[in-house]
Amino acid sequence: MPELRKDPIVGRWVIIASERARRPSDFNSEAVRVSGQPCVFCPQNEHLTPEELRAGRPSNARPDAPGWTWRVVPNKFPALRIEGEVEPSGEGLFDRMNGVGAHEVIIETPDHASSLATMTDGAVADVLVACRDRVLDLKKDARLEYVLIFKNHGEAAGASREHPHSQLIATPITPIMVTEELEGAARYYVLKERCVWCDIVQQDRGGRRMILERGGFIALAPFAPRLPFETWILPTAHRSAFEESGFEEVHGLAGILREVLRRMRRVLNDPPYNFMLHTAPLRESNLEHFHWHLEIIPKLTKVAGFEWGSGFFINPMPPEDSAAYLRDAVE
Amino acid sequence: MPELRKDPIVGRWVIIASERARRPSDFNSEAVRVSGQPCVFCPQNEHLTPEELRAGRPSNARPDAPGWTWRVVPNKFPALRIEGEVEPSGEGLFDRMNGVGAHEVIIETPDHASSLATMTDGAVADVLVACRDRVLDLKKDARLEYVLIFKNHGEAAGASREHPHSQLIATPITPIMVTEELEGAARYYVLKERCVWCDIVQQDRGGRRMILERGGFIALAPFAPRLPFETWILPTAHRSAFEESGFEEVHGLAGILREVLRRMRRVLNDPPYNFMLHTAPLRESNLEHFHWHLEIIPKLTKVAGFEWGSGFFINPMPPEDSAAYLRDAVE
Repeated sequence: MPELRKDPIVGRWVIIASERARRPSDFNSEAVRVSGQPCVFCPQNEHLTPEELRAGRPSNARPDAPGWTWRVVPNKFPALRIEGEVEPSGEGLFDRMNGVGAHEVIIETPDHASSLATMTDGAVADVLVACRDRVLDLKKDARLEYVLIFKNHGEAAGASREHPHSQLIATPITPIMVTEELEGAARYYVLKERCVWCDIVQQDRGGRRMILERGGFIALAPFAPRLPFETWILPTAHRSAFEESGFEEVHGLAGILREVLRRMRRVLNDPPYNFMLHTAPLRESNLEHFHWHLEIIPKLTKVAGFEWGSGFFINPMPPEDSAAYLRDAVE
Repeated sequence: MPELRKDPIVGRWVIIASERARRPSDFNSEAVRVSGQPCVFCPQNEHLTPEELRAGRPSNARPDAPGWTWRVVPNKFPALRIEGEVEPSGEGLFDRMNGVGAHEVIIETPDHASSLATMTDGAVADVLVACRDRVLDLKKDARLEYVLIFKNHGEAAGASREHPHSQLIATPITPIMVTEELEGAARYYVLKERCVWCDIVQQDRGGRRMILERGGFIALAPFAPRLPFETWILPTAHRSAFEESGFEEVHGLAGILREVLRRMRRVLNDPPYNFMLHTAPLRESNLEHFHWHLEIIPKLTKVAGFEWGSGFFINPMPPEDSAAYLRDAVE
C-alpha cells in the first residue's frame, strides 16, 4: 500500500510508492563518466575564466596562473549581475526588479577527473572554507539578502561542465523555498518552543533513517523525501548560519559530506546529483527556529507532470531503505 | 541585464536571464520520436490493461475489445490506491496517511503514432470530455479532495509509454501547489475584490504576452514563467471548476489546446512537454477568487541545484519572446 507522508517543516506531502521500485540498481541512473578533456577550469587555462576572486595558492604566487588547489571565479554567464542598485518597478499588476546579485563558481580541484567523493577530507574542507569566506564577503554588500551554495554533478543534474565545481548565487531577496522553511519552522517553534530540525535529529538519531553521525554532524534520510536517496546533513548542535562555522565545524562537515558522497557513489554507481546548502538569510543571524543544513538529491528519476502540477512527489524509495543502503555501504 | 519577476499569484520570483539563450533552436530539446512498436495501449491488447472504466465505443459494443476511439483504464502501477479509508497516523513528530486515491490513464487514441497536436479537434474534445466525466465521477467519492489531470509527452518529460495518453491522480488532500495558488489568489481578492487571473487576462489580452484567443479561451505566456515557452490556457470568463464545463466550453478548450500544441510542435520541433490542469478542489465550487487553467511546460532545460534549493527559476527566454514565436507560428 502506498503511503502519504508530510514534511514537518514546509508541510509538503509526498507519496512513498514502495511497490514501484526497490533496489538501488532498479534506478536507471547513468553513471557520471568523465571524458577527461582539458577545459576552461583546468590549470593553464586560467586566462579563459574571469579574474579569480580568491584561490588556494602559495602567498606571493601570481593570481590567475597555475599552482592553485581551488579557485573562486565569477560565472562568465551570470544569472545575476553585481552592478547596479536594486530597483523595483511595476507593469500593471506585475512586479519586477533588476537582476542585481552575484554568481560565482568554486573550482574545487585542479584535477579534471577528481570529485568531492575522491578528494581528501582536507581538500574538501578547503573548498568549504572558501565557500564560507565568500558568503562572509558577500554579506558586506547591503543589497544582498541571501547566498545559496549549490552543486550540479553530472549532465543529468544540470552541470554544463564536468570539471568538479560548485556554485553560489547571491540574491537581493530571500528565495521562496527558504522563506517556506523559515515560516514552517517558526510555526513549529511557536507551538513547541523548539527547533524542528533539533527535534528531528533527536528523534531519528540512531534510528532507521540515520545514515551516520560523526564530527558534530549527522546524515539522515528525511521522513518525507521528495526523491529516492534524498539525504540531509545537519550539525547536531543548533546553528542557524553556515557562515558562522569555525575551522572545526567546516572540517566536520567536509568529513561527513565526503563520506556520504563516497557511499552514494558506491551504492548508486556515481550518480548525477545536486546539493543545496540552506542557511539563514544574511540579515538574520542566531535564529532560534532555523537550523542550517545541506540537502543532497541524486538524480535517479524524472520529475513529471504530476509533480510539476501538484508539488506532490512520488518517491518509489522509502527513506528507511535508502538509509539502510547507505548505512551498510561502509568501505 | 537579467531581470527578476514575481508571479502575482504564488509570489514566486524568477530570473529572466535573456542573455543566456535567444532563439527556439538554441534549446537542445530532443524531438519526441515515436518508434511505432505496438504496445499495451494499442488495439488488440486491451486485455493487457486493467478493465476499462469508460471508453469511446459504439453502444452495445463489448468493453475491453477493439473498436474504441479512447479508453480510460486504472493505472496498472498506481501511485495511490482506491481501496481503504483515509487513516492519519503519527510517528513521533511526523505525520502519515495511507495512500488512498485513484490513478487512471486516459488513452487518447488507438493510433500509437498520433498525438493531441495531430488529432482532430473533435477527437481532442472527446478526450477532454472523458477527463471531465472522470472528475465528476470521482467527485462522488467523499474521501477525495482533489483530482489533478496531467500529461507527460516524451521520455524527457517523464513519459514511460509513447502511446498518446494523459493521466489523472485523485488525492485525499489538496496538493500544496494548488493550496498556494488558492491562498495567493485569496490574498489578492481580499485586496482588490477581483480574481487575479481575470485581471491578468484583462491586462494581457492583445498584448505582448498573448498567443491567441478563440472559442472563449485565451493562451498566453505568464509574466513570470518558470521555464522557456511556459504557456497558460484560461477560459476568458471567470470559472473556478473545470468539471463544470459544458459541451461548448470543452470544445473551446480542445480547439485552443490543439492549436497551441501544434504551434509548439512547429516552433520547438515536437518537444517533450507536460501539461497540468489546475481546477478548484472538489469540495469548493464557485470560488470567486480561483480561475481554472491549464499550464503547459515544454521540457527544454534541466532543473538544477539552484532551482531545487531556492524555488527560484532561471529562465533564459522572456515570455514576450516566446509568445511572439508562438503567435507567429500560424500554419
